[in-house]
Amino acid sequence: MKKPFISLSSDFGVGTQGIGIMHAIALEICPDARILDLRHGIPGFDVTEGAWTMESVQFLPLGAHVCVVDPGVGTQRRSIIIKTKRGDCLVGPDNGVLMPAAERVLGGIEKAVEITNEKYLRKPVSPVFHGRDVFAPAAAWLCKGVRIEEFGQEIKPRDLVKAPYDEAKVSQGLVEGKIIHVNHFGSVCVNVRQDAFARSGIKYGDDILIETAGRKIKTRFLKTFGEVAKGEIVAFPDDYGRLEIAVNMGSFCKKTGAKILGAARIKKL
Amino acid sequence: MKKPFISLSSDFGVGTQGIGIMHAIALEICPDARILDLRHGIPGFDVTEGAWTMESVQFLPLGAHVCVVDPGVGTQRRSIIIKTKRGDCLVGPDNGVLMPAAERVLGGIEKAVEITNEKYLRKPVSPVFHGRDVFAPAAAWLCKGVRIEEFGQEIKPRDLVKAPYDEAKVSQGLVEGKIIHVNHFGSVCVNVRQDAFARSGIKYGDDILIETAGRKIKTRFLKTFGEVAKGEIVAFPDDYGRLEIAVNMGSFCKKTGAKILGAARIKKL
Amino acid sequence: MKKPFISLSSDFGVGTQGIGIMHAIALEICPDARILDLRHGIPGFDVTEGAWTMESVQFLPLGAHVCVVDPGVGTQRRSIIIKTKRGDCLVGPDNGVLMPAAERVLGGIEKAVEITNEKYLRKPVSPVFHGRDVFAPAAAWLCKGVRIEEFGQEIKPRDLVKAPYDEAKVSQGLVEGKIIHVNHFGSVCVNVRQDAFARSGIKYGDDILIETAGRKIKTRFLKTFGEVAKGEIVAFPDDYGRLEIAVNMGSFCKKTGAKILGAARIKKL
Repeated sequence: MKKPFISLSSDFGVGTQGIGIMHAIALEICPDARILDLRHGIPGFDVTEGAWTMESVQFLPLGAHVCVVDPGVGTQRRSIIIKTKRGDCLVGPDNGVLMPAAERVLGGIEKAVEITNEKYLRKPVSPVFHGRDVFAPAAAWLCKGVRIEEFGQEIKPRDLVKAPYDEAKVSQGLVEGKIIHVNHFGSVCVNVRQDAFARSGIKYGDDILIETAGRKIKTRFLKTFGEVAKGEIVAFPDDYGRLEIAVNMGSFCKKTGAKILGAARIKKL
Repeated sequence: MKKPFISLSSDFGVGTQGIGIMHAIALEICPDARILDLRHGIPGFDVTEGAWTMESVQFLPLGAHVCVVDPGVGTQRRSIIIKTKRGDCLVGPDNGVLMPAAERVLGGIEKAVEITNEKYLRKPVSPVFHGRDVFAPAAAWLCKGVRIEEFGQEIKPRDLVKAPYDEAKVSQGLVEGKIIHVNHFGSVCVNVRQDAFARSGIKYGDDILIETAGRKIKTRFLKTFGEVAKGEIVAFPDDYGRLEIAVNMGSFCKKTGAKILGAARIKKL
Repeated sequence: MKKPFISLSSDFGVGTQGIGIMHAIALEICPDARILDLRHGIPGFDVTEGAWTMESVQFLPLGAHVCVVDPGVGTQRRSIIIKTKRGDCLVGPDNGVLMPAAERVLGGIEKAVEITNEKYLRKPVSPVFHGRDVFAPAAAWLCKGVRIEEFGQEIKPRDLVKAPYDEAKVSQGLVEGKIIHVNHFGSVCVNVRQDAFARSGIKYGDDILIETAGRKIKTRFLKTFGEVAKGEIVAFPDDYGRLEIAVNMGSFCKKTGAKILGAARIKKL
């Protein structure tokens, strides 16, 4: 019998006590839970970055996965739980932040509900800190065996707020996408999943032209950044299922001026 | 039977190994403890910010709560344990950092002792890293059932170093306080607890005048920042029991020049 | 019977999901493991800083200790496990990052192997994220009781990549070293272990001359930074077994221009 599993992600700064408080609240409800931080310090209110982060739930055990990136907290936006076909429960605001993970990575949406049942809220519910009063408690109650239907009314998947980014358009020898994430090292992630990228017919070792930030960069599609010289640009499959563009031992964004949500075209030469 | 609970807070950078070492030391003494990071990366030597952080112990389970914000480490300042009326043990330096939590949030001080018993110290005691050699071990021994009296001599509460901030002066329609915390988003926290604020007679929806940083700002007291337009200033109850002033989706400090420890007057209009 | 213990260190930013994913992967293989973050946010690709960090394994329980500072990931560099004489297993790339800990702090190298056995890798192995696919799984399998010999061929200690820094040259009244670490507060750590420093004959209270960054600084060797006035420079034993030079309540690097890997001579006056 496995321990119940909870992951927490948020745009709280990594040096802020909101994170520890969410752990504590979940722990009091479900003392047996294994609670893990997936990621905090997501840029404030950045639903795109939050959604990209939640795609990494694919690498976590089945469990209740909370994401608190929530510019609309305290307004009329709904609090939701999405049950995925893989079997996870994603918990957070209905602002699209859970959608790429649910629809594209974890097998699709099995069912969604609005969290309204007062029984599973921490009282009084702060209008500002739903991570503590709504989402962490919901995740812990799910781990205790409460069924998703008990939290509130079902919402039809089509009535949920849409994902903050689409998938790139892929055709023979061409990927027309955009940058949905910039990492710690200044490398960028393009909105094309590796299986979709394969449909372009671009293969390891192929020469490619990258167009982004008004620049045209001739380079190659390789297995990893270590295959080019220090300071050179390269495109390769990233660690989380998408396409990455990087400078070996440097920052692609600094070198090229590429920016989050900017267009990125990859063309076979 | 609940697991023993330890929380750790410090001004160590979140990317420094001192935190992991404190976990490990506590774990070796009390392998059953559930050890949680409340907050690290508190600004270095900032006793005000540390004290404000420790107020959040109110949201944690009963346990041993360590705070290492300790500009006087290695000098004659005392190492202490404060037993609160709620039943927690607060562990840290006698520099005021534990006082607002103990006196104003956790029911008051039940008893305080100096930590001097060599039996419960990690040897040799570094003159610099009491988090590892004094405080984390003390918390772990408390979790193992060692009584507070066994750590050393009792200290009378009035002989403890005072809290680094007072409480605001509240009268009809007026709160005269100061800023005791600036958060991640640039919002500020005023030294008035919500029950004290209520005594001003200011109610949700009331027009107020905020005076801080040499500026007079006309705004309203509302339930949350989401109730005003993007970029507007608003005052509301924060998540931790005090009054917050913020800019919706922006930084109050950047917009107004407000600073930590600056005066903040809130007047009903 | 103690729980198996894993520590994780990396140059991943503290607000990145790679850390949480390594926890999750290890947890799925060895659900009983106690998994602790020693340090993340080590400056990117900085093998010196990584190696310095791993010296702190001396304060952790016996276990499997992973370090992912890995500029050569995806190239021909080997993935290794080093068994130390203390009984730990250090897991990471063969780039010297594990060597100071193994050779100078944990009793020396008992045995080293290359990780090649496919059975203990997460498949497919990313060419970029060996923390997830090679190192965290190896640590977890070690905790499950897999013997080091089962991971791959033995490597002779002399064939491992060397440590990124030497030890200082110590003679009577003189230490000729260099700076191997700059901390959060701007204090520096010199590559002389405290037992080696003692061989210089310099004692607490002695006047010393520090030469670094083209400057000559007259000061004293004391027990801790708190013994000098605010803003003054002082040398003292650090918390991790080496010599530290700091400014009380300030930044030594800012004050003097001292830099990582710069020479540092300490001379008795």
